[in-house]
Amino acid sequence: MPDAEIIAVGSELLTPQRLDTNSLYLTDQLNALGVEVVRKTVVGDERERLTDSILGAAARSQIVVLTGGLGPTEDDLTRDAVASALGRSLIFHQNICDLIEARIRAFGRKMAENNRRQAYVVEGAEVLPNDRGTAPGQWIVNDGVVFMLLPGPPMELKPMFEGQCLPRLEKLLPPQAIRTRWLRTVGMGESDLDQLISPVYTRYTNLATTILAVSGEIHIHLRARCATPQEAETLVAQASTEIEPLLGERVYSCNGDSLEEVIGNLLRARHASLSVAESATAGLLGGRITAVPSSSDYFRGGFITYSDQMKIRLLGVPAELIAEHSAVSEPVAKAMAEGARAGTGSDYALSITGYAGPDGKNVGLVFIGLASPDGSEVRRVQWPADRERVRAFSTNIALDMLRRKLVSVTH
Amino acid sequence: MPDAEIIAVGSELLTPQRLDTNSLYLTDQLNALGVEVVRKTVVGDERERLTDSILGAAARSQIVVLTGGLGPTEDDLTRDAVASALGRSLIFHQNICDLIEARIRAFGRKMAENNRRQAYVVEGAEVLPNDRGTAPGQWIVNDGVVFMLLPGPPMELKPMFEGQCLPRLEKLLPPQAIRTRWLRTVGMGESDLDQLISPVYTRYTNLATTILAVSGEIHIHLRARCATPQEAETLVAQASTEIEPLLGERVYSCNGDSLEEVIGNLLRARHASLSVAESATAGLLGGRITAVPSSSDYFRGGFITYSDQMKIRLLGVPAELIAEHSAVSEPVAKAMAEGARAGTGSDYALSITGYAGPDGKNVGLVFIGLASPDGSEVRRVQWPADRERVRAFSTNIALDMLRRKLVSVTH
Repeated sequence: MPDAEIIAVGSELLTPQRLDTNSLYLTDQLNALGVEVVRKTVVGDERERLTDSILGAAARSQIVVLTGGLGPTEDDLTRDAVASALGRSLIFHQNICDLIEARIRAFGRKMAENNRRQAYVVEGAEVLPNDRGTAPGQWIVNDGVVFMLLPGPPMELKPMFEGQCLPRLEKLLPPQAIRTRWLRTVGMGESDLDQLISPVYTRYTNLATTILAVSGEIHIHLRARCATPQEAETLVAQASTEIEPLLGERVYSCNGDSLEEVIGNLLRARHASLSVAESATAGLLGGRITAVPSSSDYFRGGFITYSDQMKIRLLGVPAELIAEHSAVSEPVAKAMAEGARAGTGSDYALSITGYAGPDGKNVGLVFIGLASPDGSEVRRVQWPADRERVRAFSTNIALDMLRRKLVSVTH
Repeated sequence: MPDAEIIAVGSELLTPQRLDTNSLYLTDQLNALGVEVVRKTVVGDERERLTDSILGAAARSQIVVLTGGLGPTEDDLTRDAVASALGRSLIFHQNICDLIEARIRAFGRKMAENNRRQAYVVEGAEVLPNDRGTAPGQWIVNDGVVFMLLPGPPMELKPMFEGQCLPRLEKLLPPQAIRTRWLRTVGMGESDLDQLISPVYTRYTNLATTILAVSGEIHIHLRARCATPQEAETLVAQASTEIEPLLGERVYSCNGDSLEEVIGNLLRARHASLSVAESATAGLLGGRITAVPSSSDYFRGGFITYSDQMKIRLLGVPAELIAEHSAVSEPVAKAMAEGARAGTGSDYALSITGYAGPDGKNVGLVFIGLASPDGSEVRRVQWPADRERVRAFSTNIALDMLRRKLVSVTH
């Protein structure tokens, strides 16, 4: 199977403000054909650097997609650079020029002289008409390498790719299918997890495995590439059937659902409701739970108790308990969760109290409470991380405690 | 002045789901030193392709920044590829290994065997310690080309770059003074703002002006590049003295402080306290206020009232008020803020109630209340945005209402 590279052209894509996002769309399209994207490059509007990038890509890969640089101005150099990299000339097409002029006239404007630049085509290229803009695309096959020159605006690029590049690629490529699966886990570090599952995934040859640490969670991405969709589906299913038991309850979703979506579905299925009592996180847990649309089906609300006084006043935590154990303690976390459950009348309540830092003693020490119809439990966590992560990671543990509890409860 | 290239390493960055965003931060930092980024590359975890990318970059540019691929697993290949591109060996450092082990032990876990991979350093490299993770960075100068090997997670990369790469780069580069100023504003759209201030900034030649829309706020970045610090300082000061009066009270900070930091400082100076009552945002406002260290000096806490029942029960909003006006209305926003103020005994209280969507009627309609010692006020906002932005943008308005109120109050 051929490999692909994507070259995004435009000096604005080399500023701190802009990212090339067309490549995500193109990667998705190419992957679906069984083509891997092996490199992505961003280059500015500079003839020599651009020509050099094109030559490099063509020497390594069999498909080269160029996006951008097809506009009418002096610094739109993709046409010139491709022609010069391939040693071909640029040929003026009067019929393209007429189409551009007609398009601009339809907007009630007069064609500027520099729009003529867009009517130049690399010798031997197939022209890809553009319904959405003035810049036509180009399709060139040179020494077994396919070059696609596509306009930068996504509204122009996408229909051109799907309408004109896809059919051409499908004719060129052997039939292949890719199937993927995401296993999302919480409660285990990246290297421990890798050590546990690498003996499995390294045995598979057609399977690409990626392990990602995302905000305190670990996500495992399995991707199978086979001759038929059935084979690919069988392969990811088989690998994930081997990997899942090793991770056990740590796997919270296999379909890309987030932790808050998973607990939402569990609560909804059990007709159960939830509330929160937050100190260190001061609302982040509630904010995260309600990131899910329709979370009002199960989320009642709760309390942000950022001072001892508020814990006493809003949650009914006994002042003596705080005096004796401090506000960051197992008994206070328990009393907070129970206070939220009683105060809102919810079935379940989660509490978080801790030292987020950066200053003071015991930074990173957090107690997380869960009150439920059959009693309460508290987990103690010690994070080495900074304020932002102490707070974010603590919401993971809270949601995970609830998830494990809900899974253990019969419907 | 030398040019830079950035190579982001990681097969996950070649999937349709992920973008390399570290390069935006790095570009901003390098630009501030007067260094242009001329190419960005994304390559997967594959030894040969990675080595080839490193060799290409080193042949073209004088600064090569590599991000990612420093983790503990088999597919973390940046160290190996750099060593092999430069023809140097990798050397095991026992002291780094000890630090990694101590760090992992602090989490209450045992170091996995593969973490030892992270203790290998390219021969002759300076080690860049990592306070936030296990992977140390590396700084190598080879044939006049600087290589920086930085960890992928932004929380680890940023402090390492600022603390350790910046000072080294400043020593290497010709003196050029760059002075910047951030004017942060809230309450005006990007194009209206640009129309207002562009007649000013376009008159300056040595001044780069960038206008950024950031989560519903507009930030204006002024950057002067001159031969001496004095010249650069004078230039940004002059430009910002011209621009600020045009924007008036919309400018909330000139030093990069966030809106939550600004209101924190205002509250602290007035010995005043704050609480919240959140419906649509369900904790995001509290979470944001407490992102500031020591926010417990002025933030008391509050209420997450995600149902009518909770608004009645926790905040004392009269049931008839909700029945008559609905929960998303001016009177209910007012009653929520007043209920939070009374319930916590704080000087000020903010409330948010609205329809975040995506389904249902009036999506994007939000009422934001402020209760203060001299009465209450409510703002009605209609956002055209999606759920995530309706929620995030509403916290901007709430904080900005409080800011304007506090500014108007004499100390």
